[in-house]
Amino acid sequence: MRSVVTGGAGFIGSHLCDALLERGDNVWCADNLYLGKKENIDHLSFEERFHFVLCDVTKPDELDALFEESRPEIVYHLAANSDIQAGSTDHTIDLRLNFISTYEVLEAMNRFGCKKIFFASTSAVFGETEGRLFEEYGPLRPISFYGASKLAAESYISVFVDNYGFQAWILRFPNVVGERATHGAVYDFIMKLGRDPHRLVVLGDGTQTKPYLYVKDLVDAILLVVEKASEPLAVYHVGNETLTSVREMAEIVIEEMGVDAFIEYTGGSKGWVGDVNRFEYDISKIKSLGWTPSCTSTEAVRLSVRKILGKE
Amino acid sequence: MRSVVTGGAGFIGSHLCDALLERGDNVWCADNLYLGKKENIDHLSFEERFHFVLCDVTKPDELDALFEESRPEIVYHLAANSDIQAGSTDHTIDLRLNFISTYEVLEAMNRFGCKKIFFASTSAVFGETEGRLFEEYGPLRPISFYGASKLAAESYISVFVDNYGFQAWILRFPNVVGERATHGAVYDFIMKLGRDPHRLVVLGDGTQTKPYLYVKDLVDAILLVVEKASEPLAVYHVGNETLTSVREMAEIVIEEMGVDAFIEYTGGSKGWVGDVNRFEYDISKIKSLGWTPSCTSTEAVRLSVRKILGKE
Repeated sequence: MRSVVTGGAGFIGSHLCDALLERGDNVWCADNLYLGKKENIDHLSFEERFHFVLCDVTKPDELDALFEESRPEIVYHLAANSDIQAGSTDHTIDLRLNFISTYEVLEAMNRFGCKKIFFASTSAVFGETEGRLFEEYGPLRPISFYGASKLAAESYISVFVDNYGFQAWILRFPNVVGERATHGAVYDFIMKLGRDPHRLVVLGDGTQTKPYLYVKDLVDAILLVVEKASEPLAVYHVGNETLTSVREMAEIVIEEMGVDAFIEYTGGSKGWVGDVNRFEYDISKIKSLGWTPSCTSTEAVRLSVRKILGKE
Repeated sequence: MRSVVTGGAGFIGSHLCDALLERGDNVWCADNLYLGKKENIDHLSFEERFHFVLCDVTKPDELDALFEESRPEIVYHLAANSDIQAGSTDHTIDLRLNFISTYEVLEAMNRFGCKKIFFASTSAVFGETEGRLFEEYGPLRPISFYGASKLAAESYISVFVDNYGFQAWILRFPNVVGERATHGAVYDFIMKLGRDPHRLVVLGDGTQTKPYLYVKDLVDAILLVVEKASEPLAVYHVGNETLTSVREMAEIVIEEMGVDAFIEYTGGSKGWVGDVNRFEYDISKIKSLGWTPSCTSTEAVRLSVRKILGKE
């Protein structure tokens, strides 16, 4: 299988490249190295079936060059701004990197007759909600530019499926943790404690509670959904049925780093403007395909801390 | 009240300008005259409280000039490409005129501290569905670039409400009919029969069935929703509980024009790619505010034909 992974040098994208190569795919990793890092894919550079293409996927001419070379059967479109906070100050970041990028990738795919797309979406399309979120849940009222741009992208994918016969798999990611992360609370806490092992400033009051998923469990879910879900527009939630609070996470990081730090909460129920402070997924749909996470949310957090610290 | 109406020289926009002036507002009508027409607002040119501003609302500098002059308390954002078919060939039309315009209007409002927006949305955000559509219905899977661009715009409005304290009224329009229409089946049939009174070519098989609303009923709904709905993000469906088929509509136009035309159906259940061939709204939410349409869907169609023909 000839596969393109946009954002392939990023946190999740690089793990996906690993898995696709392992199962025998020819992989074109397209990345502008804005958030992605060469060091995430350095270990693949001697792999014959791995091709790195420096590419800004918001630019039609660069996409044309990518598709001309790769002629893919499927595109895994993971390129995005994944830093929700950054998008709250400069609104054009998510607009360009999440929405326009998806629109241009769809147009390029259509030009080259490639009609299979996997899209990395997010729980943030929902905004603040109550109860477990199932796939068909409405209304969708995002409260972050990140969530809005991903919902806009989902909307356009829906049209390409109907108008041009695309097959699309939209997987709505939860918070994902693991080695190679570039941001997020776990990464953030480790960095902060590295700078000052006695004091950890935590945004909010620590009660924000969400499901965390280990990155390799997520990659398994991506491969499974694309293999098993045959509907033209397959929308799936993926995550953990268990939850972890920010307070627990901070305590795990402190414990695993072996430091004696005082936790200082900035207060308020939200980490930042646009932060959804609690959500729960209904994941029965993806479980019915045969996927389950290998560990609980809190186990995933601890495993990630240990991986990032090089303890595992 | 100082009010801006974007797309104010268009079909629905010009009727809204009429109604706002009648109730005493100072109205700034912003239009690039791409679909809007000077003749729709010519009758307002001697009105002291009416101000026409030639403005492309996708351009921040032109919006700045508009806001500098008008300093509005509320923006009625109706500027859009409203021709769904046109968007299916050139995808950038809806992207720019419906989505980017909304994004830029929101940003301009934020710069000038204007935080009340009325937004003209559409049933097309839903795509193909079954049963009556209520406001919180999910999933949203548009099948036209028009619907996708409006859903993308709704998503961004949701974020401005949460992050910047905007108050927004999103009214999802059905098919709207009446004098000053620039396209749509009623307008299209009249034009075709004007050219050839013996033969009417109708796209699809005539069974497409939808609720049609008379434009002045819609304008009443706009004013009422903005006056009565106090939630920060007020989403309402507006329409008729009765429906009209394309076949009935063709027959009404032929009868009212007094011609003896043969109807030729192109076949298939859809008028064009991206056409939703049937939908029904649940309008109990807007009815609870005190609004009801003044006539049925089929009466609205007949009234519009007579108005366009100058018979009423």
